[in-house]
Amino acid sequence: MAGKVYLIGAGPGAQDLITVRGARLLAQADIVLHDALVTPEMLALCPQAELIAMGKRSGQRSVAQQIINQHLVDCAGRAALVVRLKGGDPMLFGRADEELRALEEAGIEVEIVPGVTTAVAAAAATRQPLTKRGVARSVAFFTSSTAPEHAELDAIPNTDTLVQYMGGREAIATAERLLAHGRKPDTPVVVIENVSRADQRIHRMDIAALSQGLGMPAGPVLVMIGEAMRARLHQPAD
Amino acid sequence: MAGKVYLIGAGPGAQDLITVRGARLLAQADIVLHDALVTPEMLALCPQAELIAMGKRSGQRSVAQQIINQHLVDCAGRAALVVRLKGGDPMLFGRADEELRALEEAGIEVEIVPGVTTAVAAAAATRQPLTKRGVARSVAFFTSSTAPEHAELDAIPNTDTLVQYMGGREAIATAERLLAHGRKPDTPVVVIENVSRADQRIHRMDIAALSQGLGMPAGPVLVMIGEAMRARLHQPAD
Repeated sequence: MAGKVYLIGAGPGAQDLITVRGARLLAQADIVLHDALVTPEMLALCPQAELIAMGKRSGQRSVAQQIINQHLVDCAGRAALVVRLKGGDPMLFGRADEELRALEEAGIEVEIVPGVTTAVAAAAATRQPLTKRGVARSVAFFTSSTAPEHAELDAIPNTDTLVQYMGGREAIATAERLLAHGRKPDTPVVVIENVSRADQRIHRMDIAALSQGLGMPAGPVLVMIGEAMRARLHQPAD
Repeated sequence: MAGKVYLIGAGPGAQDLITVRGARLLAQADIVLHDALVTPEMLALCPQAELIAMGKRSGQRSVAQQIINQHLVDCAGRAALVVRLKGGDPMLFGRADEELRALEEAGIEVEIVPGVTTAVAAAAATRQPLTKRGVARSVAFFTSSTAPEHAELDAIPNTDTLVQYMGGREAIATAERLLAHGRKPDTPVVVIENVSRADQRIHRMDIAALSQGLGMPAGPVLVMIGEAMRARLHQPAD
């Protein structure tokens, strides 16, 4: 048996924000290995498949990743069409490098199906373009170090718009570093939880307020910062 | 008549890389206003719709944008479901701000459907993750000024990975500025044309080579730069 593995981006969570190609492959899959963040409605697209939950949370990451890699190789040895389903896009904060290496070393064919990354879904949900003529010509997507004590070693991006993935815990540190780099305290900030899902929540503030903390539970939170986040005159309420 | 306008991201070009939601709305649309870069196969998803091509190329941008805005408002006045279809994602280099302003000022309901942005589709096509554990924790998407004589005023992003949209013409300037900022000449670069389409082409080089120019016709070219672009040991050929 020499199965093929598809790394597929599920998008932000809503069932119909996966790509047509991704949905078609899910409906054909023999086995689907999915992240903890993939929604039940997304898994409803592959009722025929054997589901394997790869619950990966922060902490003990490298051990868990090795187990996932081994699972992928094993599954390709016993099934024709194996899907590795990840939230968002697999090539952006998706640990694809480790999984591609393991599969390639084992001689297994891999294809990647891109997905809607959380930042552009958040831009759509909040009606805030990430780029804006004359205001924002660059945007950075970043995370902080998994070891918070090393966070200050990461360079803070110098782009017009900044989007911090999994930015809940690090919100205060990010705001303080932006202020230290000369960003204006009234620069608008949009924080969004559970993008595209029924329990989506949007919070608007500025960098000064962000530096006081989010004061909210830390689900999968995205923090978007920059002048492009300023609401328009006739923009409808969130 | 008070129609609703959907700003929809078509994704990189392949017909099945639009989202399920985007495809469904296209099939229901009364009118579809599409960019020049949207592929014929994508427009085959809306055979019932009146198609209006919004051919926008570089030069005379603001005039063209005003005409597009007026078209959108007019169409919403005579049809129930109007789609504004853009390549990639509408909120990233999609001029969404201008169109949202015009529609909101006219009191027209707007909804945004995100799409697969070209950078993550290029990462999938080339099998090069944009982020990579221990190597790349941040990525910037940027364009240069439309006025080349002002390009040096834009800050060059300081992120680990850089992706320049519409980067063909500015390739030499970008490479020279990265070298001036201390990036290593052998930093890998991947240039990709017509991502996900039948005529997709991938070119691998380094910053030193990029500084000598691309030596190729400038279609819609994406330039990806950074250590995350280094090919893996067992990575299949492009």
